Amino acid sequence: MEENEKTPESEDIDVEDINDVNDIEDIEEINDKLTDLIPELIESRDFQKVKELLRELEPQDVAIILEDIPFDLVPVVFRLLPKTMAADCFSEMSADAQEILIKGFSDSELKFILDELYIDDTVDMIEEMPANVVKRILANCDSESRAQINQILKYPKDSAGSIMTVEYVRLEKNMSIADAFARIRRVGTDKETIYTCYVTESDKTLVGVVSAMDLMLNDTDKLISEIMDTNVICVTTDEDKEAVAATMSKYDFLAIPVVDADNRLVGIVTVDDAIDVIQDEATEDITKMAAITPNDKPYFKVGVFSTWLSRIPWLLLLMLSATFTGAIISHYEDALSKVIILTSFIPMLMDTAGNAGGQASVTIIRAISLGEVEPKDILRVLWKEFRVAFLCGVSLAAVGFLKAFIFDARGEPEALLVALTVAITLAATVVVAKAVGCCMPLLIKKLGFDPAVVASPFITTIVDAISLVVYFAIATAILPALNML
Amino acid sequence: MEENEKTPESEDIDVEDINDVNDIEDIEEINDKLTDLIPELIESRDFQKVKELLRELEPQDVAIILEDIPFDLVPVVFRLLPKTMAADCFSEMSADAQEILIKGFSDSELKFILDELYIDDTVDMIEEMPANVVKRILANCDSESRAQINQILKYPKDSAGSIMTVEYVRLEKNMSIADAFARIRRVGTDKETIYTCYVTESDKTLVGVVSAMDLMLNDTDKLISEIMDTNVICVTTDEDKEAVAATMSKYDFLAIPVVDADNRLVGIVTVDDAIDVIQDEATEDITKMAAITPNDKPYFKVGVFSTWLSRIPWLLLLMLSATFTGAIISHYEDALSKVIILTSFIPMLMDTAGNAGGQASVTIIRAISLGEVEPKDILRVLWKEFRVAFLCGVSLAAVGFLKAFIFDARGEPEALLVALTVAITLAATVVVAKAVGCCMPLLIKKLGFDPAVVASPFITTIVDAISLVVYFAIATAILPALNML
Repeated sequence: MEENEKTPESEDIDVEDINDVNDIEDIEEINDKLTDLIPELIESRDFQKVKELLRELEPQDVAIILEDIPFDLVPVVFRLLPKTMAADCFSEMSADAQEILIKGFSDSELKFILDELYIDDTVDMIEEMPANVVKRILANCDSESRAQINQILKYPKDSAGSIMTVEYVRLEKNMSIADAFARIRRVGTDKETIYTCYVTESDKTLVGVVSAMDLMLNDTDKLISEIMDTNVICVTTDEDKEAVAATMSKYDFLAIPVVDADNRLVGIVTVDDAIDVIQDEATEDITKMAAITPNDKPYFKVGVFSTWLSRIPWLLLLMLSATFTGAIISHYEDALSKVIILTSFIPMLMDTAGNAGGQASVTIIRAISLGEVEPKDILRVLWKEFRVAFLCGVSLAAVGFLKAFIFDARGEPEALLVALTVAITLAATVVVAKAVGCCMPLLIKKLGFDPAVVASPFITTIVDAISLVVYFAIATAILPALNML
Repeated sequence: MEENEKTPESEDIDVEDINDVNDIEDIEEINDKLTDLIPELIESRDFQKVKELLRELEPQDVAIILEDIPFDLVPVVFRLLPKTMAADCFSEMSADAQEILIKGFSDSELKFILDELYIDDTVDMIEEMPANVVKRILANCDSESRAQINQILKYPKDSAGSIMTVEYVRLEKNMSIADAFARIRRVGTDKETIYTCYVTESDKTLVGVVSAMDLMLNDTDKLISEIMDTNVICVTTDEDKEAVAATMSKYDFLAIPVVDADNRLVGIVTVDDAIDVIQDEATEDITKMAAITPNDKPYFKVGVFSTWLSRIPWLLLLMLSATFTGAIISHYEDALSKVIILTSFIPMLMDTAGNAGGQASVTIIRAISLGEVEPKDILRVLWKEFRVAFLCGVSLAAVGFLKAFIFDARGEPEALLVALTVAITLAATVVVAKAVGCCMPLLIKKLGFDPAVVASPFITTIVDAISLVVYFAIATAILPALNML
């Protein structure tokens, strides 16, 4: 490492610079600059300056900077953070960075962070850690947190129970609003939200919900039972997290209660977690649609080997299933050698069928995701797609005919008939492709699987084969040169 | 219409049924039942029962039911809603249903709804209405709302200004917390959120932010200036709405302030609108990736003709661009007629290249959307994709070679050389396809366009042509039968 005596000047940032700006583009620029500046400051041992700079940032931005500076500096910089920011920043970091930090923590440092973290963030972290780190984390939790963590870890992956937090404000029916305020003041700082409070019986049965707005806008001597909303919309612990997020979005909730089979309140899901679920599910759908095994890490955090592993099985599977298409072509070798121009239309026909089928399948997959379409709508979907396919097929056939007749088959002995074969094949395969494209996702969903796996690549493979069969069947029927075979 | 004297019994639902359940699956079932029951009740003129049933529902569910009952019943049922629910329900309905209702409203009914609606919901509605309806809406707004609506309508589509609301709680620095509570009680019911309050100078310059939590957890005689956070993260009116939503998600905000160029507060964006933006953008990306012009209506609300219009231009464009692939094949007609088995590998090679390129392009498009990758990362992306492509190419070539040699080319005079041609082509095209697939979205983004348009279908068309050129070049070089041409 080279000696660097001078304090870095050129890229220097002052505390005021950070305080002055708050526009989101400036924030990105400042993060980039600090990522370069902080390691230099650490090297020149100007810890005070680093402290001052960090203090002005939001925990989310510190987390971004910590992800980008050299790994060995992470524990040093983390220890310079104000105590109040350390846990918030920690919960925003990637599992890899968290693991490095935990390994460097003393037991008392680890205990401090764990006390400050919300239970649901601790659970998220534990799910990503190797066994020995998990052991150390649980050993450093107080016994109540440990029981709560173990409880949440038991719920199935992707269920409401697995993403909920147990830190909510619980009120009782016979409290006055003043009592409620007093309780919120006492326990509120540890809760993930105080804006929606839940009213339960002594056995934790959920009976009502009160918003902070209700509390603030009513007289303080009113009883909770007078102002609470008893028509509580809730989810059960085993509800799929995607459905939970969709419900919260539908009703514009800031939090939704999670109950067990006996309607006892066990936790809440807050809107920030619902947003993460919505983002992750969209990414997962998009990834699956492109025939890739989903992965919840950012692009550059996934290694080359893992990326290969997530892509190669699908490429191999799709390549091998293209055997059918190859077999169909081999079967018609004689026909192709007689009218060799037929070969030149194969890519266009296959691509068009694949694109038409892909449009239908992706549209339906997204509509299923958004709850707009269900398997029972299959006939309605088919009827709509059939009419759309008819219009698309006719348009493509018309253009395809003119193009084939005027350009591609020009001068061929059977130009008109070849163009006709291409046009009829286009129309027929577009209709079949759209029908297959819209039905497959609904059938897959009906069978209980994720429809996203039958997006474009799979539909393409299926309709490729279909389009070739149709093509050769029509060619054999129409072209005199082939009729004589 | 047939006469129906009996009160519907079989599917009858009691008010208690609705009140008893609150699980989200039961809600869907109840909505379905009510969609059938309410028209029957209206026909048998049992308006009281309809009123009772509706009163127990959430406005979002009433909106769903109103979308599904016959159009001519919508105004009748809407008038049976409790006054307090009417506006909330109205704002959740589709533009088509809103238009029908407005056309049936008297001026005083319209005025009532407009008074109750939040300004941002009114603006959303106006953007979807024909000119004569807009005129009538503006004529029935009070002058202050009209000015605010016109102001918001001026901001560019998809900007922070266009999705913000102007109904927020404004506080002053020298207020005490008690003063702040008094103001919130006075103005709070009309505001879209009271959980984040904004502190401004008299000229509306934004100087701080105070959460309801800060207000509730501090002593009531403290001053706002003592507890406010002066490090306010905000967005400007022209910021892209997707970036606004991403920022809110990053910092877990329930609302974000929108300022003009002089840092004066002009509105706020609330988290429920941010969630809608995130959902809509994901749908738009997915739609574009499947080569469809996006449309913000649910699947069944888009007519057959509009669906055709959103799909056919892309199908035509992609079909015509497949001309290149056809031309390449025509060029090599002689080679194909000499070694006819070469033709049977064309679909497999094209599909594999398309799938490999599609994987890379979709991964990068999503990473761009999530802010994980930027155009300046192009070399880092290329280096990663190159290594992944190398691994994928080698794996596919190995399997492809064995399959071609043992099965497809069995008994052919040049089986080994044909299999070798296929294997080398696979390896080479996968590398090229992944390189094209990862670079195109970054270049398109750099040029200022939406990278989602160069997803699988476009990449497929490009790499199809490339894979054929590579295939024929390698075949001509390796196969003796072609060398002698």
